[in-house]
Amino acid sequence: MADFDNKFPGKDITPDDLQTKFPLAAKQHPEHFSRISVAGVEFGGNELPIMAGPNMVESRDLIFDIAANVKRLGAHCLRGGAFKPLSFPYRNAKYNETREEGIRWLGEAKERFGLPVITEVMDERYLPMVCEVADIIQIGSRNMQNYPFLTACARTGKPIMLKRHYGASLRDWLGAAEYLLVEGNERVLLCERGVSVPHTHRATSRYLLDLQVVPAAKEVTHLPIVVDPSHATFWAPWVTPMALASVAAGADLYCDGRPPLTGSLQ
Amino acid sequence: MADFDNKFPGKDITPDDLQTKFPLAAKQHPEHFSRISVAGVEFGGNELPIMAGPNMVESRDLIFDIAANVKRLGAHCLRGGAFKPLSFPYRNAKYNETREEGIRWLGEAKERFGLPVITEVMDERYLPMVCEVADIIQIGSRNMQNYPFLTACARTGKPIMLKRHYGASLRDWLGAAEYLLVEGNERVLLCERGVSVPHTHRATSRYLLDLQVVPAAKEVTHLPIVVDPSHATFWAPWVTPMALASVAAGADLYCDGRPPLTGSLQ
Amino acid sequence: MADFDNKFPGKDITPDDLQTKFPLAAKQHPEHFSRISVAGVEFGGNELPIMAGPNMVESRDLIFDIAANVKRLGAHCLRGGAFKPLSFPYRNAKYNETREEGIRWLGEAKERFGLPVITEVMDERYLPMVCEVADIIQIGSRNMQNYPFLTACARTGKPIMLKRHYGASLRDWLGAAEYLLVEGNERVLLCERGVSVPHTHRATSRYLLDLQVVPAAKEVTHLPIVVDPSHATFWAPWVTPMALASVAAGADLYCDGRPPLTGSLQ
Amino acid sequence: MADFDNKFPGKDITPDDLQTKFPLAAKQHPEHFSRISVAGVEFGGNELPIMAGPNMVESRDLIFDIAANVKRLGAHCLRGGAFKPLSFPYRNAKYNETREEGIRWLGEAKERFGLPVITEVMDERYLPMVCEVADIIQIGSRNMQNYPFLTACARTGKPIMLKRHYGASLRDWLGAAEYLLVEGNERVLLCERGVSVPHTHRATSRYLLDLQVVPAAKEVTHLPIVVDPSHATFWAPWVTPMALASVAAGADLYCDGRPPLTGSLQ
Repeated sequence: MADFDNKFPGKDITPDDLQTKFPLAAKQHPEHFSRISVAGVEFGGNELPIMAGPNMVESRDLIFDIAANVKRLGAHCLRGGAFKPLSFPYRNAKYNETREEGIRWLGEAKERFGLPVITEVMDERYLPMVCEVADIIQIGSRNMQNYPFLTACARTGKPIMLKRHYGASLRDWLGAAEYLLVEGNERVLLCERGVSVPHTHRATSRYLLDLQVVPAAKEVTHLPIVVDPSHATFWAPWVTPMALASVAAGADLYCDGRPPLTGSLQ
Repeated sequence: MADFDNKFPGKDITPDDLQTKFPLAAKQHPEHFSRISVAGVEFGGNELPIMAGPNMVESRDLIFDIAANVKRLGAHCLRGGAFKPLSFPYRNAKYNETREEGIRWLGEAKERFGLPVITEVMDERYLPMVCEVADIIQIGSRNMQNYPFLTACARTGKPIMLKRHYGASLRDWLGAAEYLLVEGNERVLLCERGVSVPHTHRATSRYLLDLQVVPAAKEVTHLPIVVDPSHATFWAPWVTPMALASVAAGADLYCDGRPPLTGSLQ
Repeated sequence: MADFDNKFPGKDITPDDLQTKFPLAAKQHPEHFSRISVAGVEFGGNELPIMAGPNMVESRDLIFDIAANVKRLGAHCLRGGAFKPLSFPYRNAKYNETREEGIRWLGEAKERFGLPVITEVMDERYLPMVCEVADIIQIGSRNMQNYPFLTACARTGKPIMLKRHYGASLRDWLGAAEYLLVEGNERVLLCERGVSVPHTHRATSRYLLDLQVVPAAKEVTHLPIVVDPSHATFWAPWVTPMALASVAAGADLYCDGRPPLTGSLQ
Repeated sequence: MADFDNKFPGKDITPDDLQTKFPLAAKQHPEHFSRISVAGVEFGGNELPIMAGPNMVESRDLIFDIAANVKRLGAHCLRGGAFKPLSFPYRNAKYNETREEGIRWLGEAKERFGLPVITEVMDERYLPMVCEVADIIQIGSRNMQNYPFLTACARTGKPIMLKRHYGASLRDWLGAAEYLLVEGNERVLLCERGVSVPHTHRATSRYLLDLQVVPAAKEVTHLPIVVDPSHATFWAPWVTPMALASVAAGADLYCDGRPPLTGSLQ
């Protein structure tokens, strides 16, 4: 009869994977949970770190306005993208990268409001410049398996938040984290941001937030788990319930939104 | 050029659907939320109804033992299956339906502990018998689009909990609910129990709990939303975080588990 | 450490499943392929049976017109639905079931053109009436796991075509087929008609045709595999390439379309 | 009531996308199909180009042995990876990259057997070296949305085969192709290699080959479509039927396999 043995790697994590594929990301004992401190904010402990800010650092005014709200409302880190992966090569006035200028504005907002900053990089060339400002480097979903880039990011020594690709298994995600850890960089945060599934409930919501991955990840890895409830839902009224659900499931928060949305997270 | 207009029904809900496809399930105004009372338990209001019990009513002893715990721990309804859709036609001692006998045991436990009972039916023939005991009829995932059966269930006049099929859109789910409502039966609960997606994080977890559907459903329907966190996860350690996340997302609870699991829901 | 052994049934077929879950559907040796004869048409052999016709038997004229084309173009069976699962309870003039009348028209077209007929049933009550006309009973996707109904269909003794549910695994599909076979009805055809996945390439195409399931099924079951290329694509220009691809993958054909479409299958 | 208008980009292609998001990838008229010549092999025309070879260029002997078979059996290009994205950072003897050495062996095999070569690059640094040997640069699934890398590849002027990411929509895929075209590089091939879906029919088959994307892509883009039937299936007996189905659906072929498999493609 046909041969069904799984001689090749499958889709789910096996006990052997914990030993051989991602020994550094794997828990050593059931209560093994790493606590990662970034500029006085502790991830993976008893606090509930909240990183908030706009999708894109569109202007100096915008980032200052939002940073003031982020600070006032008690969130812990300022987020905002100056480099953004855009699915098409053409830019318009509304949806554009502010790049070097945006990073500089983030740096000014950081100093002005005393907030650590997390921001995305997509290209090794910009790592040195971004590292002068960023307290945490974000590796976006689309770069999760860009291994040469993972290695370059890890070697900066900066804390890194690794977003799960929208099509990736937990196994592949931890494999990507292992590429960071094997470089000796121990400050790695994992961030769930939505997966590609048959039904997302709105034509504009391209992803489904996968909260089942929170307990699943905590069972096998000691790395802190962050959830981004805004990207998957892409619809403001759903962000608050999904943010609350994320925290209830055991995650920290990474949230994208303009002030009214940020306000709703109180 | 090619024609991309959506002349035919799509995958997501349109404003027109609310008027023409499921006007009875659709909200009439943003604060329109139905409250459904079943044996003194109110769904859709400020309470948090919890329905708990074993997957299958395996024996009289088992259901009595669990019912005692369900009562003691403060849950509101006793659940348990005497008729179960089994994916293969062969039975074994461990995984068998207790059918008429199981329904009778549920009735005895209901009387003994003063707990309303919810249980699944799969076949119109057994509706009269089950209705003598059940306070809520459960329509299982696999029967969500068995329309003649939906009609027969609705006509019993009993409250009904309609589980979402693991491959169904919110649009199809509300279409199925409309089949119940159009018969004049207004006591309909919707229950999310997991969807079929690429990654579930364990080979034994066949589904991913979709919590994004909770705010999505509440935006368009006035019917109460229940979540079953145990079927999708199929792994006891994940049930508590997913139960908490379900409540945080805005749902009521329907939980399957033996006493140790039930206990963990305190 | 956490326990990852698959003590419970998983998502994919195991060697043990072939022995214990669906021994009647499973192949006994690599070259075991059942040939099923229906009114002179042999499925599973060297012929390429094509079943064609309209989605719904909308009128006597329509079914006669299409049956004439089906016959003229050399297809082997006439298909057409008189009973159709409609996702919402409201009917309109364009999309309505013709029920008893439609079955009668199918019978007249069968006699007039000498074509065997395949048609769907959704309710046990209509089985005797439909069996007077139908040469093959179609069990639709939504009823694939409606087990009491599977049993009732099998007991008619008629050949049955079992459509795969759009969310079902190959394992669940063969489990459903086993419910038919265990009743002693050996004339079972399997029909792939599209699965629910993240991307279908048109808003109106709700499913993706899964052709990988054709060699996968042929590896484990001796039952003939049919593919319906029209339902998943839901877009006429894609039907011909997907029909050709289905045949190349090893399947028989079941095709829904009005005459221009049928013509394109030459 | 709730607002359902799609103000933001959705999941499927709209007529507007053809004009504004990927005007260079979009067809200008229904019969617009680009023909791309690479070392005498024409893609997108009436020929059926077949690219075959091993997954990895494991050794000089292996690639010479396979190249001899690829030539003898009439395939048109030699494929083989010297740089491979490996999901975990640890290497073993069996599954290792041969990198610069592998590229040199490919160059020797190319010269010896007169076969054009296609091979993957993952890192901009290696582009000049690889371009000395490769006739076509392969951009792998995981790098489909690594935009700075796409730009760097396009600027080499070499023909490029862009694999679809296993979670990407047709819309995102064409957006990535547009990043290549906008640099003035017109020789772009698209390659479908399997998508992440709920059911793949074997634990070791991580992807489902999406053949519906072939007619869907041909409806909107003039770029040639290639299918890789071996990566998704990951099971030799399924490769031949899926290769035949790919061709029947309208695609060219890119096939990974050791000699016995290559032989089966005759």
